[in-house]
Amino acid sequence: MNDLTQTPEMLIAMMGAKARRAASEMALVSSERKAQALIAAARALRDATGRIILANRTDMERGAANGLSSAMLDRLRLDDARIAAVAEAVEQVAHLDDPVGTLIDAVERPNGLKLSRVRVPLGVIGIIYESRPNVTADAAALGLRSGNAVILRGGSEAIESNRAIHAAMVKGITEAGLPADAVQYVPTTDRAVVGAMLRAVGLIDIIIPRGGKSLVARVQEEARVPVLAHLDGICHIYVHAAADPDMAKQIVVNAKMRRTGICGAMETLLIDRAYPQAEALIEALLDARCEVRGDDAIRKMDVRVDRVEDGDWGTEYLDAIVSARLVDGMDDALAHIASHGSHHTDAVITADAGVAEQFLARCDSAIVMWNASTQFADGGEFGLGAEIGISTGRLHARGPVALEGLTTYKWVVRGSGQIRP
Amino acid sequence: MNDLTQTPEMLIAMMGAKARRAASEMALVSSERKAQALIAAARALRDATGRIILANRTDMERGAANGLSSAMLDRLRLDDARIAAVAEAVEQVAHLDDPVGTLIDAVERPNGLKLSRVRVPLGVIGIIYESRPNVTADAAALGLRSGNAVILRGGSEAIESNRAIHAAMVKGITEAGLPADAVQYVPTTDRAVVGAMLRAVGLIDIIIPRGGKSLVARVQEEARVPVLAHLDGICHIYVHAAADPDMAKQIVVNAKMRRTGICGAMETLLIDRAYPQAEALIEALLDARCEVRGDDAIRKMDVRVDRVEDGDWGTEYLDAIVSARLVDGMDDALAHIASHGSHHTDAVITADAGVAEQFLARCDSAIVMWNASTQFADGGEFGLGAEIGISTGRLHARGPVALEGLTTYKWVVRGSGQIRP
Repeated sequence: MNDLTQTPEMLIAMMGAKARRAASEMALVSSERKAQALIAAARALRDATGRIILANRTDMERGAANGLSSAMLDRLRLDDARIAAVAEAVEQVAHLDDPVGTLIDAVERPNGLKLSRVRVPLGVIGIIYESRPNVTADAAALGLRSGNAVILRGGSEAIESNRAIHAAMVKGITEAGLPADAVQYVPTTDRAVVGAMLRAVGLIDIIIPRGGKSLVARVQEEARVPVLAHLDGICHIYVHAAADPDMAKQIVVNAKMRRTGICGAMETLLIDRAYPQAEALIEALLDARCEVRGDDAIRKMDVRVDRVEDGDWGTEYLDAIVSARLVDGMDDALAHIASHGSHHTDAVITADAGVAEQFLARCDSAIVMWNASTQFADGGEFGLGAEIGISTGRLHARGPVALEGLTTYKWVVRGSGQIRP
Repeated sequence: MNDLTQTPEMLIAMMGAKARRAASEMALVSSERKAQALIAAARALRDATGRIILANRTDMERGAANGLSSAMLDRLRLDDARIAAVAEAVEQVAHLDDPVGTLIDAVERPNGLKLSRVRVPLGVIGIIYESRPNVTADAAALGLRSGNAVILRGGSEAIESNRAIHAAMVKGITEAGLPADAVQYVPTTDRAVVGAMLRAVGLIDIIIPRGGKSLVARVQEEARVPVLAHLDGICHIYVHAAADPDMAKQIVVNAKMRRTGICGAMETLLIDRAYPQAEALIEALLDARCEVRGDDAIRKMDVRVDRVEDGDWGTEYLDAIVSARLVDGMDDALAHIASHGSHHTDAVITADAGVAEQFLARCDSAIVMWNASTQFADGGEFGLGAEIGISTGRLHARGPVALEGLTTYKWVVRGSGQIRP
């Protein structure tokens, strides 16, 4: 249970960190399992009808005592029929098409590189809403269906109802094997939480206020113009056990040494303990006049290897220096990248297509590569023409951003007199 | 010339307002004219080589006196060859495909509504950069090619060079008939300008920092989690001279009265002075028990019409009230919508397809409609399933946002050992 005496910043930092971990899990859950989880959540909502109505009664009594208008009280009120409708809405979301994994476009470059853009979840969505308790279930369902983790912050008038609905949702999704932290409810009605959520850059990816104009205005007061940029390019190459040794050597040396000052340069080399030619790889880098900072295993390979310090893993050298370590398989490599990476460009080298596809799916970076140099991370190389920059943010545009990233869209509706029934 | 004694907020507000007007113009410039303007700008850059080198010499001398490193001085330095390369890069951008107007997708709904999503420019782009003066031309070229207005804020070390390049760009684009305000250069090196740009929500649509890590970190320090929302739904219907009277009556009454409390409800009715059946339209609303607040011309039509006040045009009634006035043609209607609208949903009613297409192209709202009720502005009606909200922001997602809007993408690169030459 959360300690309510802590600051809103600490609370949101803690919830955000949990949400981020849950989001990594959620991103890999199959469409079918997400649908099953929502159907289980709908069932749990129906099963909890009595408890939810009881909680709602507390909110209604407090609301009446506080002089809420009859319109507000009506929005707040839950009964059997309304809870049934909430559960049904969750089931309907389970049956919507899952956009995750959809191919947006694909192209083959003249040099044989095959590029594609694939839909992935945004990550962590913060929902700020008011007195309608059904938003707790609706927003959570939409967020989960699309593979995200959700942090819900409802209005104080509906707190007991929201908590009861949230508890039922969590029960349903955990029964279906989804992480409980994928749907969290902010356990305080302190208004400062809204500001803390807006300032949680890197922990929450987008804030969606759902409510009247005053709520939206309050949220937007603290808003800033969005920034499209990347802070670091800490690019990794993971050399898998089944990597072709010649290819590995060529790619690793090129990814580090072709130009050391660009954001797509490799900064960390992760070699699988089962890869038989690690020593040759390290020697190739050293022979190319690259300084290598390695863990004990790497240092045993060549006397020229320096000792790596903890700070190295998060350093973008932009110089002829690389940090290197052995890893115990892909899980270890991905965990290292998740801890120290910057979501810019990360690559796997392997002759095993199944391993490669797993890495491409599981690595959460703007650009993921298989058997190619990370130095290709560039708008020109991607065939986009001149680029305005590379984005490691998750909103609007990711990776190399060129002309298309400087546009948005509008919906054009052409009718012949249609009115809405 | 700008008054440099004003606050950064005032300066950016003024530049932002000019940029917004220029952006509206830029959005409608044909691809060919934008290309011609960039070619003219490249020529102007070449013609200004002497002046640019002279300005650059001032920056170089100041830089040397201030002890800039030789690497920094090299980044700053311009000569004939570098200016030729800058001009050539601008020409290359002129030859890139223009994304504006591209159809993203299209669908016909069971009720016959034809929906499409069409690429439009983002609007106003703020570029914050450091010592490389070529960014002045590069970033401006990319912003203009994609139909945007650009506000440039370069580093203090390069200010004379940047101004000389900016002046040449403006000369080129204005010769080609593009608005000078489409490329503005912030005429002060006050660091507080960066904060003012980040806080200019509604004036600047996106900030792109181009430079080293410290610049990006400084910009991101003031960043906030992006918000997806709409503040107001001040939806307009423009009844054109050639509107079918029966269709106009049905759509207008439905758009206002079907449900008055939703964000897609019409709030303002703009009737063309040349439309012969205005009186019947106003009567239909009054007969449907809608309060009508009109200008003098509308008040002459029926004694039940109240006087409209200036504040009415920007009011989202969410009630059985409508504001109404006569307009002098489409330009007047679009100017009214631009001044008072909220970029949510706006519609034209006309039997003239040419007029309709003009309105659909020129009206800068998330949803633009022809011959249909604004009450269709809804994720369910658009076939998206449940919606998480409607966005009037320009970034990431616009209009009804459903599951797809809760995803982003990643670039997947599959190679066979490619290294970058």
